[in-house]
Amino acid sequence: MTQIGSKLSGLWKVYTPRLRDSDFSSLPQIVAWEEPSFQGRKHEFTSECYDLGSSCAFANVGSARVESGTWVGFEHPGFQGQQFVLEQGDYPCWEAWSGSNAYHAWRMSSFRPIACANRRESKVTLYEQENFLGRKGELTEDCPSLQAMGWNSSAVGSLYVHSGAWVGYQYPGYRGYQYLFEPGDFGHWNEWSAFRPEVQSVRRVRDMRWGHGVRFTPPEIPSN
Amino acid sequence: MTQIGSKLSGLWKVYTPRLRDSDFSSLPQIVAWEEPSFQGRKHEFTSECYDLGSSCAFANVGSARVESGTWVGFEHPGFQGQQFVLEQGDYPCWEAWSGSNAYHAWRMSSFRPIACANRRESKVTLYEQENFLGRKGELTEDCPSLQAMGWNSSAVGSLYVHSGAWVGYQYPGYRGYQYLFEPGDFGHWNEWSAFRPEVQSVRRVRDMRWGHGVRFTPPEIPSN
Repeated sequence: MTQIGSKLSGLWKVYTPRLRDSDFSSLPQIVAWEEPSFQGRKHEFTSECYDLGSSCAFANVGSARVESGTWVGFEHPGFQGQQFVLEQGDYPCWEAWSGSNAYHAWRMSSFRPIACANRRESKVTLYEQENFLGRKGELTEDCPSLQAMGWNSSAVGSLYVHSGAWVGYQYPGYRGYQYLFEPGDFGHWNEWSAFRPEVQSVRRVRDMRWGHGVRFTPPEIPSN
Repeated sequence: MTQIGSKLSGLWKVYTPRLRDSDFSSLPQIVAWEEPSFQGRKHEFTSECYDLGSSCAFANVGSARVESGTWVGFEHPGFQGQQFVLEQGDYPCWEAWSGSNAYHAWRMSSFRPIACANRRESKVTLYEQENFLGRKGELTEDCPSLQAMGWNSSAVGSLYVHSGAWVGYQYPGYRGYQYLFEPGDFGHWNEWSAFRPEVQSVRRVRDMRWGHGVRFTPPEIPSN
């Protein structure tokens, strides 16, 4: 018969997460493997990698695991080409970090941690046209569809990040090309390396290593 | 010289969005085109489509636009196969709705509106193993990385949706296979049509057609 009192129990409860700088006590860390499914040679990084080929024994990432922090990967060396925002977790193949778009980027050749991912508040102002012109909108929350909020267009031509780091996506629901927006102004969509002024969903980049409001639940142990 | 007083101005401000049932005054609506980029024959739907081939003159969607509501599309007729959560916006090609995963589903042959997307509060309990066993965690907010919150595994074996609709993803950052979780219990991961018990990010499905806290910004008109 099961005795409730003898069980280990608990609850991993997520209160509205409010991040604080002190949550970032540990180093950002990413491990890259040469082959998919975490096979072959591997290399561990705790700071930016400008060019994978000159940093370790292999030139392309087959799979990766983000152990801590939030990172941004790039298709080419020198932080060039398609961008991939990498939160903590397992990326067993290139499809796991690449967006769902017509041009498939199977390479990831440079990456760096995102420094401002621990901001407590995030705010971005979007403009429909280049040079901060046209309709504008201010966001402080994740938005899987700008059009659902009345943006009435798939176009974002320029933007200004007041605080936090954000990631914009070509298509609704966080799909397609990914663009990292860090604090500062982007007067033209080509400044975020887009091929066209198309952004349909936007979310905050959050490093969620907080210690408060989280309790683990070990599995329940049946009594004999 | 520009005169501030003569300009039309405003601010599209997003206060923390709290949805209410009354926001859903309009019908859900999706338009499907036979060809990519909104070309060729088209058909408009305001309720579920069990089998595209028997509902209109073409059997597959080349592009789509969600005009209102939030929908879920399926790879095969009869709401079978891969799932695609479709928020309001433009989907000019199949890559726009398909996830970034190794198996590319270029077909979308059935779809339906998500009825519970207008819930004000959302809550889901995840379990590491099948049959609601092992570690568990409760979520009320979007989570782009379960591992960043200490889940310590890429596995979710079963779950219970208390309220709201949720979408789970195979990889962190809302990537890979998408799984729609509507209220009720899922005692085994094959009940959400997964091939393996792998869920690394989870977010709420929200229909954000609210009228409060949103003000449009017409473009500024320079005075002469």
